[in-house]
Amino acid sequence: MRMSERVEWAAHCAVLLALLPDGRSLTAAQLAEYHGVPGPYLAKSLQALMQAGIVASRSGRSGGYRLARAADAVSLLDVFDAIEGEGAFFRCTEIRRRGPSRVAAARYTPVCGVAGAMWEAEQAWRASLARVNIADLAAGTVADAPPEAVAKGVRWLATVRVT
Amino acid sequence: MRMSERVEWAAHCAVLLALLPDGRSLTAAQLAEYHGVPGPYLAKSLQALMQAGIVASRSGRSGGYRLARAADAVSLLDVFDAIEGEGAFFRCTEIRRRGPSRVAAARYTPVCGVAGAMWEAEQAWRASLARVNIADLAAGTVADAPPEAVAKGVRWLATVRVT
Repeated sequence: MRMSERVEWAAHCAVLLALLPDGRSLTAAQLAEYHGVPGPYLAKSLQALMQAGIVASRSGRSGGYRLARAADAVSLLDVFDAIEGEGAFFRCTEIRRRGPSRVAAARYTPVCGVAGAMWEAEQAWRASLARVNIADLAAGTVADAPPEAVAKGVRWLATVRVT
Repeated sequence: MRMSERVEWAAHCAVLLALLPDGRSLTAAQLAEYHGVPGPYLAKSLQALMQAGIVASRSGRSGGYRLARAADAVSLLDVFDAIEGEGAFFRCTEIRRRGPSRVAAARYTPVCGVAGAMWEAEQAWRASLARVNIADLAAGTVADAPPEAVAKGVRWLATVRVT
């Protein structure tokens, strides 16, 4: 069971957008260049982030993306859900209600033990990701990145046509 | 990101095997019939459980499956890992090391913030599933199932050729 790498791309894009000066934005092509990822696929991810209200774009040829809300109001879980959808990892097909032991559906407890345990684990996962926001990740990125990488990133931002 | 339904099948098979009298086993076809799932696909799952040391089989035509160890020594996480493999949901492709800001790989921290947060959430998920064992699920199944379903299950077990 593996997460799409588009979640990783989307998270890093959100972090970079959080580091832009106020009012600035970057196009899909610029975000793709900065992260070394394929532009057309990244554009799809950015559209998913837009549909989820995480980024906003200016229309037109100079249109770029910016965060649609404060970076500390966007969690890593929000980014995951935007890309992968909010469906559960575990989807119960109620196999306890099949086969020779089955009785009328209404007589079973609402949730069997297997499904209950799976969903409890999933809630623990979601709660952990919900505690991490893009503002903290952005601050951590600047603090942890090699100083030369930060300097190169800042120089790159100065050279691109930031809209 | 969705889990294979074979995890659900495998967990319910392990629960049923935990409820068998000592020394008894069930064939793949019997396990498939009881759970109303496709036999050939279930056989693949049972082989994965066997490779993980969760079930054991007797060879030959009468060969059936039984738990290979005590039911309270098999966690729901063990079952998941047997079916889905132990790889992480999130696999970091180190996109921070690409693009115009990149510097030599050795200069980066071992784990970036995005990957660290993803893996921490995953550890919470794994810890939750590791706390649930097949013995508890089996006891819960008997306690929670409609009494008529338990009776029908017991009658079915008495009619099949339990090896």
